Amino acid sequence: MQILITGAAGDVGKVLVESLADEHEIVATDADPDAPEGTRELDIRDLDALTEAFQGIDAVIHLAGAASPESDWDSVLELNIAGTRNVLEAARQAGVRRVVYASSNHAIGGYDIDEEWPVTPDMPVRPDSLYGVSKVFGEALGRFYREAHGLEFVPLRIGWSSGDWGAADSEVLRAMWLSEADTARVFRAALEADSPDGGPYYATSDNGGRHRWDMTSTIEELGYQPQDSWEAAAGQE
Amino acid sequence: MQILITGAAGDVGKVLVESLADEHEIVATDADPDAPEGTRELDIRDLDALTEAFQGIDAVIHLAGAASPESDWDSVLELNIAGTRNVLEAARQAGVRRVVYASSNHAIGGYDIDEEWPVTPDMPVRPDSLYGVSKVFGEALGRFYREAHGLEFVPLRIGWSSGDWGAADSEVLRAMWLSEADTARVFRAALEADSPDGGPYYATSDNGGRHRWDMTSTIEELGYQPQDSWEAAAGQE
Repeated sequence: MQILITGAAGDVGKVLVESLADEHEIVATDADPDAPEGTRELDIRDLDALTEAFQGIDAVIHLAGAASPESDWDSVLELNIAGTRNVLEAARQAGVRRVVYASSNHAIGGYDIDEEWPVTPDMPVRPDSLYGVSKVFGEALGRFYREAHGLEFVPLRIGWSSGDWGAADSEVLRAMWLSEADTARVFRAALEADSPDGGPYYATSDNGGRHRWDMTSTIEELGYQPQDSWEAAAGQE
Repeated sequence: MQILITGAAGDVGKVLVESLADEHEIVATDADPDAPEGTRELDIRDLDALTEAFQGIDAVIHLAGAASPESDWDSVLELNIAGTRNVLEAARQAGVRRVVYASSNHAIGGYDIDEEWPVTPDMPVRPDSLYGVSKVFGEALGRFYREAHGLEFVPLRIGWSSGDWGAADSEVLRAMWLSEADTARVFRAALEADSPDGGPYYATSDNGGRHRWDMTSTIEELGYQPQDSWEAAAGQE
């Protein structure tokens, strides 16, 4: 497959560019002109540029946007809301078959604050931040594009993707850790799964606390099999 | 209560300005400079103007925005998304206690298209339009403001509010009709209910087909009692 990645210079993007390249042709894009060599400059604020870049692409992995849960409204509005709409609209116009969307546990972080677990994919959204609200928006827009335009939209509610398990300074981060290798596995599953329904799909490693978020559909529909765990990484197993 | 209404010159707004004025002090606002006499000009694109107008207000009824399910992206983004954020942020800054939000059945219209009924308030959202996506956004943002900032946010998923029952040219419109008098009743209930939880609350008249959308919480939590029905209005009962 020809796969275009937005936000390819970010932490998740770098992992995916490297790990997916053995099986797929990857077009790495980022708005940052100082992104790693081989990255094409592409700004999700520019619908026309997106539509042009998406010609001939089979699937888009949409990672670009304001990535911090503390993002302010202006950046959330411009990048996560308007930018994500541009990505989906360009995908529709260019005939892209599938968009894998980096959603987030912050779309339902309110349950975590109140420790109301387990959280299943069909529970009402409960964002814990403006960032989380923007992820709810992206999921809803994707569902509309899926139903109205036939776009295969696959939203992953990513936990805490990080190569640095040691930085998990709270129980919730240890529970939602997603190793770099498992990050690659779950995105690969989302890209390659045969006709997945619309999700959303939780994505963590096989950590001790991971059952707070019900990954049944990620495992059964997408075929994701986490191989890592925070406890194993920390030598606590 | 001092109640400010945005979009007061629209169809729902006119009904509410007239019907709520006997018990509450109403500040009718609209962006249209040609709005009816007594309407204060207020544009939801202007956060500072909103914050100033909301001083001393107990509750805001937020109706303003692109009202058509066929609204294009630019108007949805500017009015329903950025505008609704301005309204909630101004309410927070001005210390408004409650915001009653005109959401819509279009937030879950995908179920209607597939005739998957009944639809309950806790089912995943399924917007049928960009307009519907914007209502999903408004509900999610309101939930965040409620949980993070203590704002009493009451979202009503309004069916088809209209004084003209005869214009209901489809079964779904007859099922989701909301008479003008019931429009006033359900907004009054949303304003006056004691500590309602966050909804969302379906709002139709007592039509033959209304059980497609589960109004149990609207009746039990808000105290809404619909008095009209499409069949009675049409003399078919």
